[in-house]
Parts: sequence; structure tokens; C-alpha cells
Amino acid sequence: MYKINGSIWIEGERGAFIGSGRVVLLENIKKSGSISEAAKSMKMSYRQAWELIDSMNKQSQKPLVEKTSGGAGGGGTIVTKEGERVIKLFKELQNNFRKFNETQSKKLTF
Amino acid sequence: MYKINGSIWIEGERGAFIGSGRVVLLENIKKSGSISEAAKSMKMSYRQAWELIDSMNKQSQKPLVEKTSGGAGGGGTIVTKEGERVIKLFKELQNNFRKFNETQSKKLTF
Repeated sequence: MYKINGSIWIEGERGAFIGSGRVVLLENIKKSGSISEAAKSMKMSYRQAWELIDSMNKQSQKPLVEKTSGGAGGGGTIVTKEGERVIKLFKELQNNFRKFNETQSKKLTF
Repeated sequence: MYKINGSIWIEGERGAFIGSGRVVLLENIKKSGSISEAAKSMKMSYRQAWELIDSMNKQSQKPLVEKTSGGAGGGGTIVTKEGERVIKLFKELQNNFRKFNETQSKKLTF
């Protein structure tokens, strides 16, 4: 029994913009409010995580992730409304891709 | 301007069956009639090429590639009818995937 699988991502003029790893990073930042916590949970260095965030923020008209300073917790990192929108959009895309793969898999005749 | 890009492949129960690299290998074997020529043109070792062919042949009910022996040329390697069918099927899949990506790219609102 064969099935179709694949990987999908969004590119800008400067290369990769959003892919599944970057979306997981955004979700982990949202959960933890911290880049270093998010990086740790993905076995990634802080620097790697920061570079991915920087790449996304620079390619987007509005930032997807922002540092907050001060307040009771002494500041942290948040996913902006634009970031939330990008997460949602990418998940819809992944869902459509899954459906595409299922439909195409039915056409396989070997 | 953003666009969607991706990669797609066909999996069997034992993992990867057909992907774009494997299809290029089949096409190169068809062109040259030789595994070693095909491998060389892809900067791949003979062993790597042979392992890919072996993996495809073992996962398919009918072999995709066969060695021929004797004849004027002293034998060589051919892509079978089933191999031709798989090449065609995968190219159609890639074409549908390209269309899917174009349609989905139009939905991007950032």
C-alpha cells in the first residue's frame, strides 16, 4: 500500500519564510513566553532560534515575535497578532496539503 | 511576494518508494542504458544508484529496472514498461502539486 507524503513551506524573496519547524517554534514561544525555553524544548541553541525569529520578522511587514520589557515578570517574548495569523494560515495550508495527498494517493495504481 | 513551495514523494510500507531524485535516476538510466553512466551524471556512486534501484524494484510488484544480457551491445540496463509508467505517474503528481501550490499561494494574505 503506497501513500503520498511531502513537505511544504512558504518562501519570500529572501528564501524560507515559514515552514513547519518555524511554526512549532512560534507555538513554543507562545506557550512559554521565552525564546530560550522554546529553543530548549526543540533541542536548538538560543542563537539558532533567534536567527529563525529574526528571519521571519525581517521578511514580514509586521513582526511575528516581539520582546516585551518590564512588567511584573520582568519582560519576556510574545507572539504578535500577526504571528498568530501566520500560525493559523500555515496550519490551514498544511491541512489542505494533507487532503491533497490523500486524494492523490487514491490515484496510485501500483 | 510570497509563494508556496514543497517536496512530494511516494512511500510504501518500507519507507521511500518514489521521489524526484529516484525519477531523475530512472530517466538517466533510460537515456544511457547504464547504471554507472546514470550514477556518474548525478555525481552518485554506482553503489548508491544500485541501492536506490534495488529499493524501488523490491517495493514494486514488477521491477522498474532490469539488466539485459548479451545482444550486440553486450547487455545493459533498461527501464521496464512498469518503470515508464511510474515515471509518468510521478510527473503527473508533481504537476498537480505545482498547481496546488500556485492556487494556495494566491490565498496568502501577507
